[in-house]
Amino acid sequence: MPEWIWPGSDPVVPSDDRGLAYGQGVFETLRVTPAGPVLLEAHRERLLAGCRALGIPFDAGALDAWQQQAAERGLLAPQAPAVLKITVTAGSGGRGYRPPEPVTPRVISVLVPAPPVPRDGARVRFCQQPLSAVAAGRGHKSLARLEQVLASAELSDDEFEGLMAVDGGSGWVEGTRTCLFSVVDGTLVTPPRDQLAVLGTLREWLVRNADHFGLAVQERALTEADLRTHGLLLGNSVMGLVPVSECGDSPVPVNAGATRLVEDVNRELGFG
Amino acid sequence: MPEWIWPGSDPVVPSDDRGLAYGQGVFETLRVTPAGPVLLEAHRERLLAGCRALGIPFDAGALDAWQQQAAERGLLAPQAPAVLKITVTAGSGGRGYRPPEPVTPRVISVLVPAPPVPRDGARVRFCQQPLSAVAAGRGHKSLARLEQVLASAELSDDEFEGLMAVDGGSGWVEGTRTCLFSVVDGTLVTPPRDQLAVLGTLREWLVRNADHFGLAVQERALTEADLRTHGLLLGNSVMGLVPVSECGDSPVPVNAGATRLVEDVNRELGFG
Repeated sequence: MPEWIWPGSDPVVPSDDRGLAYGQGVFETLRVTPAGPVLLEAHRERLLAGCRALGIPFDAGALDAWQQQAAERGLLAPQAPAVLKITVTAGSGGRGYRPPEPVTPRVISVLVPAPPVPRDGARVRFCQQPLSAVAAGRGHKSLARLEQVLASAELSDDEFEGLMAVDGGSGWVEGTRTCLFSVVDGTLVTPPRDQLAVLGTLREWLVRNADHFGLAVQERALTEADLRTHGLLLGNSVMGLVPVSECGDSPVPVNAGATRLVEDVNRELGFG
Repeated sequence: MPEWIWPGSDPVVPSDDRGLAYGQGVFETLRVTPAGPVLLEAHRERLLAGCRALGIPFDAGALDAWQQQAAERGLLAPQAPAVLKITVTAGSGGRGYRPPEPVTPRVISVLVPAPPVPRDGARVRFCQQPLSAVAAGRGHKSLARLEQVLASAELSDDEFEGLMAVDGGSGWVEGTRTCLFSVVDGTLVTPPRDQLAVLGTLREWLVRNADHFGLAVQERALTEADLRTHGLLLGNSVMGLVPVSECGDSPVPVNAGATRLVEDVNRELGFG
């Protein structure tokens, strides 16, 4: 059975936790509202895929058990919108890097503040810190997030997000905590899955439902020319879609197709 | 001032620690004996370089303070050899990936079991898991160690270490927790610094003092032919040098130069 840690006064974990020691764990941040969690199934899928990739025996049954306990605690449908973070680590034990047998997962659930969202337009910048094309756990939301931490440290206070490129690749593929979208003449352009450090749940949903919003889909990295000509949207499942108004001190346009998509998506997912 | 956590009954860290959440931290494992710590200065240098690279304001003065407290607790010169692990994280706080200002480091000190060491010859294997050439924090002993964890999970119970290659590179450059050496006709061959996930303290010391052991130095990745012809040594500062006797079910020779180096180095550093 996993070890459960629930929101309370000053939750702590043993200092020998393998998530702390080596990054052997995954997490999800889930927007929860009176109507329930947003994109729950997508978050479940990514969490379980990450656990499999990292050798953590936390399966759908264990996740069901978490979900039931979280529901009983009122965490999945709070009175006001909130963000619920679940972290699943490989627990304690093992000899150095070698995991113990069996691994006993540790599951930490906490409520974290919802991020402020500049609905009228975000400032972003191009980051120097590259994404590794072969990082272990790539695509999964593992606890090893140094690339994103170091890219975030490049941002000034009034910059909302940093754009990142794959080392040796061309074009911009991802924000530190958002996926990237551009609406170009009726087509949703977004970087391909295999270039992403984290496979965004909102992105997956949006690509799957693009025709519902009257858009075709093209998957490719975005160039600076794309941004300057067609504009840029940022998206994740706790903020919805956010238009970009400025990148690196130069303006970024917001076209009519993008404005409509932002309104439609945010309404559909229950964002303000 | 950093927050200190010392060995005691069940040490814990707050669940919002940035080392746990994102891997924003570094660690060192230090062999400590009645004669004091082994290669202390090299461990200090690597720890401080890692903190600088990861934006953690833990400097030489803070490390001096740690060292003094550790000495007062008897941790640096125990009655029997032991392994002291120090972990320095970016502490708690911040908005998501963005670090707080200021960062208050958290310093966790624990005694961990000394690894068993097959002095008569280790079995190793070639690992599938590659090392990323551009991983954030590369060279530093950061808490983001998924590559090493996943490579270690490839090992069977009777395999002591796994050899890793840089993605897209040629040759073997590093073990999951050791550096690699081959003694070839009076020359110490070891992979170059810029190909290492972690810059080994024993390796640095050995390269600097090679002439003391009557050896020249050549820095290059090792091929399987090197291993099969000249043999392979594994080394780190908590185990000293260990000869390899078998790799992937085929024997690996141990030549006279390697045997002498193992004896000389282990004697000089106080290993049994």
